[in-house]
Amino acid sequence: MSWFNEKTPEVAKAFAEMRNAVYKEGELDGRTKELISIAASVLMRCERCTEIHAERARKHGATDEQIAEAVACAMFVAAGSQLSWSDVYEKILGESNK
Amino acid sequence: MSWFNEKTPEVAKAFAEMRNAVYKEGELDGRTKELISIAASVLMRCERCTEIHAERARKHGATDEQIAEAVACAMFVAAGSQLSWSDVYEKILGESNK
Amino acid sequence: MSWFNEKTPEVAKAFAEMRNAVYKEGELDGRTKELISIAASVLMRCERCTEIHAERARKHGATDEQIAEAVACAMFVAAGSQLSWSDVYEKILGESNK
Amino acid sequence: MSWFNEKTPEVAKAFAEMRNAVYKEGELDGRTKELISIAASVLMRCERCTEIHAERARKHGATDEQIAEAVACAMFVAAGSQLSWSDVYEKILGESNK
Amino acid sequence: MSWFNEKTPEVAKAFAEMRNAVYKEGELDGRTKELISIAASVLMRCERCTEIHAERARKHGATDEQIAEAVACAMFVAAGSQLSWSDVYEKILGESNK
Amino acid sequence: MSWFNEKTPEVAKAFAEMRNAVYKEGELDGRTKELISIAASVLMRCERCTEIHAERARKHGATDEQIAEAVACAMFVAAGSQLSWSDVYEKILGESNK
Repeated sequence: MSWFNEKTPEVAKAFAEMRNAVYKEGELDGRTKELISIAASVLMRCERCTEIHAERARKHGATDEQIAEAVACAMFVAAGSQLSWSDVYEKILGESNK
Repeated sequence: MSWFNEKTPEVAKAFAEMRNAVYKEGELDGRTKELISIAASVLMRCERCTEIHAERARKHGATDEQIAEAVACAMFVAAGSQLSWSDVYEKILGESNK
Repeated sequence: MSWFNEKTPEVAKAFAEMRNAVYKEGELDGRTKELISIAASVLMRCERCTEIHAERARKHGATDEQIAEAVACAMFVAAGSQLSWSDVYEKILGESNK
Repeated sequence: MSWFNEKTPEVAKAFAEMRNAVYKEGELDGRTKELISIAASVLMRCERCTEIHAERARKHGATDEQIAEAVACAMFVAAGSQLSWSDVYEKILGESNK
Repeated sequence: MSWFNEKTPEVAKAFAEMRNAVYKEGELDGRTKELISIAASVLMRCERCTEIHAERARKHGATDEQIAEAVACAMFVAAGSQLSWSDVYEKILGESNK
Repeated sequence: MSWFNEKTPEVAKAFAEMRNAVYKEGELDGRTKELISIAASVLMRCERCTEIHAERARKHGATDEQIAEAVACAMFVAAGSQLSWSDVYEKILGESNK
């Protein structure tokens, strides 16, 4: 992302500071934050992000199985959210029952 | 989601079994899976999902701060992925440097 | 969408013509096109769109069960696409097997 | 997706059963379900999914024109949903008319 | 977003600084940045964001027609991107021509 | 997109007319419309769209820095929208304060 540093240096700097703030050891440990970030990277369709956060997750001791389970959560929520994002189905499909 | 059970009972049953498989105690504990699922729910724009997974996360002992940090990871990846999803910027913005 | 007609009348007109072109009887019948559009509306998180296309699907003879099955397809693809959108997993998770 | 079977075999099994439940002959025929799934695959930005469902659609007798019309529905809803996802425009743009 | 400031004060602070960096007068003027942000808010399905950026756009002198044209760009790209996001169509639909 | 013209010529024609209507000189100039479209292309995960609109933006006199600032707006809104898309956080995280 050298172009980003070159063309918008102030935003790039602020973004780097946000990264530090988000990933610093807090109430969640680094491994958990990286697993959350893998799921987020997948949902955002960002291969490079997925690689970066998987690499970092590994450095924090995450196993392959843990990474796969994080992806499985993303997969489940992606499915379930198609049903639960809205109450409109009850209105559409519920009427016919009466 | 009663309509879903009524109108497509077999899919509803299979979906319930997938939920059991995804959230059963595995390599990741229940609390971590729910925090990942909160981030996924936010990214998928599903309020009901966010509520459900926050409630479950709480039952697994998650604090408010941990939920907020999970959302912060989603926020960071949503931002960063706008830069990292593609190499096309280097091509577009890199050319002008030469 | 009266604001759209008022503020950008030419785009509104072109958009209405695109709708006519997309939904006119073609190789797919109207019912099938509306069921596809319901799934698309769900994935795009548009309640009003879901209502409109469900109403039109009904006018073309679609049953509740058919609408629910269209949503089930959206749900399945939303899930499966988390795995299939990328080859990056093989690289990340495949390495550890060697 | 061999990694998925290896690393989370139970989820993989449940997911396969969900696929069977979703795509079994029901109120919609196989061809219609695959056309809906093509549109969903496109909207989810999943090339591999698009290929898989196009291949299956062909096996169920779908023509090129039918696949193109399914994509056209996805395209239309993607456009229209930018207007119809929210009532906020009326509030923002409607005020100025008074 | 008072919860965000309370629960993750460091991230909230870094995020506020990123906002300042992004929206400060730069190569693009404030009005243009706000119009871009309206389109982004719409695409991200965020009503509150759309309201905030529309309000700011107005303060920078944007008219209703300009806001509507920004939404029209989002609408067009949402449609066109369904065709242009992938080369997979040529492979799927191109083969049959031979 | 030759396949689109071949397989659904009427939709292709209507879509081309919509493009003309959206991008004609209006209340916003061509450069601004293309910068908005770059941000939209990024958010829609469409590399080809990003290239096309960047090229057109250049023809309208846009600089690299302006393109980078448009992407920065997309990045900021993508982040901020994770917080502002919903009131559900107040409900979830606000309760604990009492």
